[in-house]
Order: sequence, then structure tokens, then C-alpha cells
Amino acid sequence: MHFRTVAIIGRYQDTGLDAPLRKLAKALEAAGCRVLIEADTAQNTGLTEHTVASYTDIGRQADLAVIMGGDGTMLGAARQLAHSDVALIGINHGRLGFITDIPLHSANDALASVIRGNYEAEDRVMLEGRVVRAGQTMFSGIALNDVVLNRAGRGGMIDVRVEFDGAFMYSQRADGLIVATPTGSTAYSLSANGPIVHSKLNAMLLVPVAPQTLSNRPIVLPDCGTLSLTITALGRVESGASVHFDMQTWSDCQPGDLVEVRRAQHTVRFIHPTGYSFFATLRRKLYWNQMPQPSDEAE
Amino acid sequence: MHFRTVAIIGRYQDTGLDAPLRKLAKALEAAGCRVLIEADTAQNTGLTEHTVASYTDIGRQADLAVIMGGDGTMLGAARQLAHSDVALIGINHGRLGFITDIPLHSANDALASVIRGNYEAEDRVMLEGRVVRAGQTMFSGIALNDVVLNRAGRGGMIDVRVEFDGAFMYSQRADGLIVATPTGSTAYSLSANGPIVHSKLNAMLLVPVAPQTLSNRPIVLPDCGTLSLTITALGRVESGASVHFDMQTWSDCQPGDLVEVRRAQHTVRFIHPTGYSFFATLRRKLYWNQMPQPSDEAE
Amino acid sequence: MHFRTVAIIGRYQDTGLDAPLRKLAKALEAAGCRVLIEADTAQNTGLTEHTVASYTDIGRQADLAVIMGGDGTMLGAARQLAHSDVALIGINHGRLGFITDIPLHSANDALASVIRGNYEAEDRVMLEGRVVRAGQTMFSGIALNDVVLNRAGRGGMIDVRVEFDGAFMYSQRADGLIVATPTGSTAYSLSANGPIVHSKLNAMLLVPVAPQTLSNRPIVLPDCGTLSLTITALGRVESGASVHFDMQTWSDCQPGDLVEVRRAQHTVRFIHPTGYSFFATLRRKLYWNQMPQPSDEAE
Amino acid sequence: MHFRTVAIIGRYQDTGLDAPLRKLAKALEAAGCRVLIEADTAQNTGLTEHTVASYTDIGRQADLAVIMGGDGTMLGAARQLAHSDVALIGINHGRLGFITDIPLHSANDALASVIRGNYEAEDRVMLEGRVVRAGQTMFSGIALNDVVLNRAGRGGMIDVRVEFDGAFMYSQRADGLIVATPTGSTAYSLSANGPIVHSKLNAMLLVPVAPQTLSNRPIVLPDCGTLSLTITALGRVESGASVHFDMQTWSDCQPGDLVEVRRAQHTVRFIHPTGYSFFATLRRKLYWNQMPQPSDEAE
Repeated sequence: MHFRTVAIIGRYQDTGLDAPLRKLAKALEAAGCRVLIEADTAQNTGLTEHTVASYTDIGRQADLAVIMGGDGTMLGAARQLAHSDVALIGINHGRLGFITDIPLHSANDALASVIRGNYEAEDRVMLEGRVVRAGQTMFSGIALNDVVLNRAGRGGMIDVRVEFDGAFMYSQRADGLIVATPTGSTAYSLSANGPIVHSKLNAMLLVPVAPQTLSNRPIVLPDCGTLSLTITALGRVESGASVHFDMQTWSDCQPGDLVEVRRAQHTVRFIHPTGYSFFATLRRKLYWNQMPQPSDEAE
Repeated sequence: MHFRTVAIIGRYQDTGLDAPLRKLAKALEAAGCRVLIEADTAQNTGLTEHTVASYTDIGRQADLAVIMGGDGTMLGAARQLAHSDVALIGINHGRLGFITDIPLHSANDALASVIRGNYEAEDRVMLEGRVVRAGQTMFSGIALNDVVLNRAGRGGMIDVRVEFDGAFMYSQRADGLIVATPTGSTAYSLSANGPIVHSKLNAMLLVPVAPQTLSNRPIVLPDCGTLSLTITALGRVESGASVHFDMQTWSDCQPGDLVEVRRAQHTVRFIHPTGYSFFATLRRKLYWNQMPQPSDEAE
Repeated sequence: MHFRTVAIIGRYQDTGLDAPLRKLAKALEAAGCRVLIEADTAQNTGLTEHTVASYTDIGRQADLAVIMGGDGTMLGAARQLAHSDVALIGINHGRLGFITDIPLHSANDALASVIRGNYEAEDRVMLEGRVVRAGQTMFSGIALNDVVLNRAGRGGMIDVRVEFDGAFMYSQRADGLIVATPTGSTAYSLSANGPIVHSKLNAMLLVPVAPQTLSNRPIVLPDCGTLSLTITALGRVESGASVHFDMQTWSDCQPGDLVEVRRAQHTVRFIHPTGYSFFATLRRKLYWNQMPQPSDEAE
Repeated sequence: MHFRTVAIIGRYQDTGLDAPLRKLAKALEAAGCRVLIEADTAQNTGLTEHTVASYTDIGRQADLAVIMGGDGTMLGAARQLAHSDVALIGINHGRLGFITDIPLHSANDALASVIRGNYEAEDRVMLEGRVVRAGQTMFSGIALNDVVLNRAGRGGMIDVRVEFDGAFMYSQRADGLIVATPTGSTAYSLSANGPIVHSKLNAMLLVPVAPQTLSNRPIVLPDCGTLSLTITALGRVESGASVHFDMQTWSDCQPGDLVEVRRAQHTVRFIHPTGYSFFATLRRKLYWNQMPQPSDEAE
């Protein structure tokens, strides 16, 4: 058996998760696993007949965490377990996500098979970053998708000076700048016209949102360097800027603040049932399979 | 009865069109129409029990032409009938197109209703253009979608100088330049990152394909002016360039050639069943209706 | 003499404007004009030897307003004078703008010539809009560039349902939606990948910012219709959304709020010295004139 | 002395190169180098007082090749010397290129310094590819910038099926597909909306040109895999398709042909004077340094 202790984590806002989670827990026990239920999940679903565990305990004891929810739930769990060695697998009870790729209806079979060793493991890089003001760290965080520096909603773009390993890259006025992992290349970065980056590349991606310099383009950089984003000006006096590490936000940026981003020491291990295809996920999520038919001449 | 004489035009490469075309002709006669079968269509389908007519005769005698095929068939018919007053309606036996918006399975009912007056008419602008060398017209044509000037496949971009009503706009090195009507804004222009232009706007669209100047952008212009594209250089000595009016091509462009494009005097009248929605067509063709569900948090 | 009463408006944050403004006022008087100094401008520069006038008085008495500043100063003056018939002319003392196209060093000569009738007039459309909640107007405004609906900086996109003249267009999750005039097509909209729209077109432009549906595209619409943007959801519970009419902001949008945008009744009249070229402005602002030289083979 | 035998290669179409090439040759000899003049260069410039050498001899004997011309001349020399260990340095006598970064006026000083060891070396990956028909290789080549599969100019897009290491990626109808190295990411790929890829990344880039599926995006892939592009259909019967390895072209593609692309075994070594900055080149070539000034409020 490849995973002995398995934690179950559910999207906490969801109602109606208790039945499928209960079935899943039973199936895992039947397969011989020890089952832990994440504390908030247990409280929300009333799933108290199993061992209830904090994220800290899950990090110490579990071999695998099964996340039921959407990509956002997966991001949250990845951050909570970033400093552990727990592998993650995602079950989506809605429309399949980029990183939650097992549909609910086949979850129990898929997991039973995974437990027996029929899986592919994939290590994903995370970013760590911090906001520095006058030499002092004001905020720090880690992100599986992206670190985003952007203007507050009141209007007015922000001016940012960008350096890579101390070398000046460019200054840019824009709505924001996205630093994304390969995992994050299919999230917000993609909406901002960034490229898709294969998860095996040791790369990070710098993508401007609505840049004022029209010849600015997304840049793919080696992930062994450090990106430094310095806010040189805010669009208007009353405007603000904020930094987002996935869904964690720090909203009090001021001119002069420096946002430093580099690859985190820890990686996240994703587990997929054997036969997983990154490209199939892309085709499904982006409707690439809907090729016009030959009768669509001359469009 | 709103349309007395109705011509039927089928996509000539298609096999298997004879049965639906025959049914359609019968239904139109049953509704009291006089039916003409376009000559090539008659020959390809063996549909000889009705009056066979050339495009010239159709242009003189028909009130409505029913086109069965894809958008390309519709473009061809529009060009053939450009100087007439025949209205056009499109039936698609494959995946619905942008301008062939009646599915085959409901074609007979839809047409019966249209004949009785349940329709919306929509006039679409066409472009006319010519290639001028040393003051002499080498080639001329009309287009419902677009006039495209592009490099030959051998490699090397082309350099083009663009003027609008005699005023210099820009010089550009690119794979090509597209001048599109609002109708053409959802065709090739859209692949080259052009905007969608509502069919009621008196506009034409200038879109570069792979422009070397990265800050070049699509431009929407009033359709009362003349665009002049002069080829100032070819990428390599052995390269060529060609001009396309929809699917009609002239391949012998040389440096110094001038391509002049303006709105054509004639317009095309499209007929849609009552309730037609341009936006619904966009949503269907571009998969806009596939909104991520609320469970896709935080992407 | 083509303009008898001329108002002078300066960028109020600017220091060092008093000398050039004083020279300008003298030159206009020498040319026989009556000169009004806008009240805030007079206060900031100490330019009190001429008649000081409120915007209301300028609107009633002036034939021409000379704006010294950047495009933003021009936008502000256009809004203040939107309901009058005062024509506007812009002088830029920094880098030339899209709508402030006379450089400071040649301002006096240029204006003397304009006063004698050597000018071109150009009418620009404005937008008017309002935020409606439960049938009640919460906020209204007008804009020369654009009306922008966007998320607050805290993160999380907004979901918006878009209708044009009551017909459903699409629902979109995005950072924001821009409704721009042709004038505004070279402002924020251009950073968000919108096309350039010629100022003579009766069009408005709908451009999404970072849309989640990757096949969404900018759309150019006739400006005789009404765009309705309904906020159907905010990215996160604590997030907000705001509406901007040029630089005027209303920040308290809630789910369910409707933003209605249509062409304003009044237009703005811009005055340019004879020989003005919109395309020359584009080339200068977007660096189109920097064509690679022939020696740049094969890039 | 770091480079003992130095070859000189000039852009062969250029007139007026003989004087600077002669000065360069003398300066290198004065610095103690043995100088070889590439055979075609010698013939075109009459530079016969030095040893004339074929590319084969240069590949065997030279430590460094100095290329005088544009990026295209550099590409050609890189291909000719791909199987050797000769390092390359580029001098541009026009506008600086991406890979020819020494201006002519400072060439002699810059090279004297480089010869003494003041340089940075940078290894750039190349691609190798072949066209396979019915199991037989029809054409093969190598490229420093890109391998491009595209339609012939006669019109009609091509349909291509793409696989990476045997896994199906997507089928796409488009004008063409670009497979680019990091070096090539600033060439044609950039015009087709591809991202900039840092030269230290072990990546290759797949970028569609005018793709019909609007949600298709550029993809960055590890360069240890093989991309397979199969032509499944041509737009029209009479159309063709061609493959380009940098500037070498094979024009006879047919439906069914397979284009295989992978990283070449050999790399190219570029030499830059100490202090070279890739980002400075980007800023200069793409006009990023032209930031709008603070007076450009509110754009």
C-alpha cells in the first residue's frame, strides 16, 4: 500500500459535502488506510466518527491529503501543508479544475486504485515572497499560483520598477504585475495574456496586466533568480496598492515598498491517477477540442 | 407572400445534398414560390425537375436565394449576386456558421415562415478593391469578408505603407494586412486579434498579421474613406506577395504595387428568421456561454 | 477674428505655470481677444490682472478655452464645460498627449494663427452613465474617455452580465469592463488590448480587462444604443467594485447594481491648428515611426 | 590571449564593408591574432591580403568568428558553424540587433578588449528538425531562432496535429505554427504574440500564428522533448505549406507530412563584451525606456 495515512479536506463553504466525504472516508478505511479528517472540515460536515486533525497534525502524520472542492480549495491546502511532505490529490464535485482533476462520481474507484500504486507524482514549485519597507519585512507569504502586485480599485495605475537578480529589467505603469509559477500560468496569468508554461520547467513568469507600454510582453525567467518589484509611484494620491499570495492579501502598499519573489524551498507533490495528461486538461478547460469542422470553409 | 421567386444554391463539392435540396425545393413550391436551381448545383445534384438558372438569371429574376452549405458557400454566392438585389439566407448542414444560421433539420419550417414574412433583413457592406501597377489596374475584386494582402509562403515579411484618404498612417513589416468589413470581423481578422465589429457600424477594420512593430494595433476606420496599401519591399528577393478578395486570389504582387480598398457601392441583404441575434451567434461560435461555475473559486 | 472671448485653464497642481500663462494671456489680448482666467488657475498662479471666471461663466461667455497641462487636465475641463458650446484647445508643456497636441514652445504662435481662423474643428462624443440600484440612481457622470467598471484591489474578479439595447451579449468574469469612446480608445482601453477607433466613427467600444473566458474579444458597437452592465457577483465576500467616469469614481458597487452607459447628448469640440493629423499623433505616441531598417534582415 | 585565431565574416550583400573589415583585420593582427577571412566575404570585399578560409576551415581552425552584419548574417554563420566549437561575436553596422550587439564605431576597441579576456560567454540552444513523409526524411535542418511551419501564400489555413513526446496536445487550424528557441523568442515569435523567454531556460516555445481556436495560447515546453507537427489538411486543394529552419526553406509540404523538432546536440557560444545585459537589449529594441512622463496624467 502506497499511502497509509490519508487526510480528507473539504471546501469549507460547501453544503452537501458530508455524504460524499463520509463515503470517501469509509472507502479509504476499507482499503486499509488510516483516515484523518481536517478539523474545519469535520466541524462543517459533522464527520466526527473519524480522527479529527489540525493541519499541523496532518502535516506530521499523513502521507496523502485528498482535497474535495475546486482549485481554490487545493491552493489553500497546498499553502497549509507547504512545509510538510504530504502529497495532494484533488477531487472536483463541480466542473473539473486545472489541479483538481478527478470527478466526484469516480472518486472512490480512482482513489482505491491510487492507493494501490497506480498513480503519477508531479512536484510543483511554489513561490515565496515578502514586502519590504525601509529594510523591514512587512508581510511575507507563499504561493502555488502567483504573487500579484496591483493597484487598488480607486483608479490610477501603479508605477513599478522591476529587477531580476539585481539587474534592471524595466519600469512599467500598469494595473498590476503577476509573478506566476508554471502551475499559475493557467490561472490569472492566462487571463492577462500570459503563455502556458509546462509544469516541468524550472521557470517563473512575469506578466503585466494592462501595461501602458504597448510593446511590453510576458517574460519567462529561470526560477533560480529573485524578482524585485519596487513601487515607484501610485496613480493618484489617494490610491493604494496591494500584494496577493494566491488568495492571501496585504493591502497597505506604499510608494517605495519592495516586493521580493523567489522560488520557495518546498515543493508540492500532486498525485494523479495513472494516465493523467496535462494537455488533456488544457483541451478540456480551454475548449480546444471543439475544432471547427471541415465544412467551415474559408473562415 | 414576401418572396415569390426563390433560387436554391448548394455547396458544389458536397455529396449527399440532393435529398435535402429536393425536399427544400418541393416545400418552397408547395408554399407557392417559383423555384430556380443554380446551374452548377443542378448539375452536381441531378436536381433537374425545376428550372435551372445561371447566376445572371438568378440575379435578374429571384427575390431570395437560399444557400445550403457553410459560410464559404455564402461568401461565393454573395460575390456572384453582388450587383443584384437578391436577398440571401443561409442553411448550414454542418456546424452553424456566422452567416449561415439556420440548421438543416429545421430549414423547411424556417423557410416557410420566412416566406410568410417572419424575418429580419440586414444589409451588409462589401469592399471593392484593385491592384494598381504603374497607374494600371492589374486585378480587381469585391469581398464580403475581407481583402488580405500577405506574403507568399517562402518566408520573409512584406513592408507595406498605409494611407487613408491620402493621409499617411504607418509603414509596417508584417506577414500581412487585413482590411475587413464588420461581417469579416468574425472571420480571419478575429484570428489575427482584431476586434468584433457590429454589423450596423459604417466601419472597416485594418488588422496587421504578426506585425514587427509590437505597438501596432487594429484600427477601426469610417467606411467612407479609401485605404491604400503600397508594397514597399518584399522580405527576400525571391519572395512574393498576394492579394485575396475573400477566396479570390491574385498572386503576382511586386514591390511598388498599390492595393486600393473602399466600400463597394452594392450591399448584400441577409435574411434571418425573426428572433435572430448576432450576439447569440457569437456566444455559440466562441463558446462564451461556457462560463466557469461558481465552484471554480480563485482562478 | 474667429474666437473673441478666450478662457485660460491651467493644470492646477503645476508650479511654474504662471510665466507661460501670463505670456499667453498677453499674447491673446494683443491679438484682440477678451481673456478670462479660470478661478482655480488664477488662484494657483496669482494671475489676477485679467478677468477671473468660474467654469459656469466660462461656459456662458467664452468661445474657446485654452487648456495648458496634460490629457488629464483636458479631460477635466471637457467635463466641466460639457454642457456649453466652448471649444477646447490643448497645450502640453511636457510630452505631447493624444488630445493636447500643441507644444508649449510654439503655443503663442499657434494660438495667434488659430484665432485668425487657421484651424480644424473636430467634435468628439462623450458618454453618460449612471449606477442604478433597485431602480434608483445612485451615481451618474459623463466621460470623454471611458466608463470603467472594475473590481476593488482586494482581489477576486467580478462577474458582469452585459446587455446591449436589452439584448443579452455575454456574462463575463474579469478584472473589469471598459466602455470607451473613440477618444478613449487610445487611453486605458489600448492597454487592455482594445483597438484604435477613428474619432469620426459613431461607435463605442466594449473591452474586457483580463477576461476569464479566453475567447472574449473587444467589441465595437454603434453609439446609438445603451450598454447595461449588471454586477452579478463579486469575487469574494469582502471584495468591492467601483465605477469610473474618466477620473471620477464611485466605489460602493454591490452585486445587483446596474451600470447604464450611452452616448451623451453634448459633444466636445476640439480645435487643432491646420494640418493636424490623428495618425501623426498615433505614430509619435506609439513609436510607430521607428521602423527597423533594411539591414535588420530576418528578424 | 583568449582567442588566437579569429575569423571575419561579413554580410555578403553589403557594399562598403571592405574599409571597416580591413581596419578590423589589421586591428586583430596588431593584437596578435591570426586572421582568417571567410571565402565569400573575401571575394565580395577584395580583402585578399589575409588568409582566405572556407566555413569548414574556419570550423576547424578558428577560436572566434567576428560577424559583421545584422542578426540574419549571425543566424547564417551560426548554422554554418553549428558543428564546430567556434564562438561568435556580432558587430552591427546599422541599428543594433538582438544578437549583434556591438556598434561598428566601437568595434575595434570592443574586440581588443574581448581578445584580452574581458567578455561573457553565453551558450544558446539550437533546434534540429526534419520533415518525414511515409517514414522517409525529405528534408532536415537546424535553426538558432525557429522552425516555422506555415501555409503558402495562396490562402487557406493549414490544419496541424501537435504532439509532444507522443502525447497529443491539440489540433489547430492556423496560418502557421512556430517552434522557437529562447533566442528566437525575440524574433518572429514575438510578432505572433509569443512571450520573451530568457536565454538560460532549457525551454522551447510553441506559438500559433493567427489560430482559429481563439483560446489557443503560446506554450513553453521543456527542451528535452520532441514536438511532432503533422499536417492533417491544407486549406484548399491548390494550397501548399512550407517549413522554415531560420531562413532555409522547404516548400513542398503535403497533407500527411510530419515535422519533428527537438533540441540540437550542438549549442552556439555567443561572446559579449563584459557588462552585456539582455534586458538592456530588450529595452533598446522594444522602446521600453520611453516611459510616459508624470505629466501624462490619467491615461
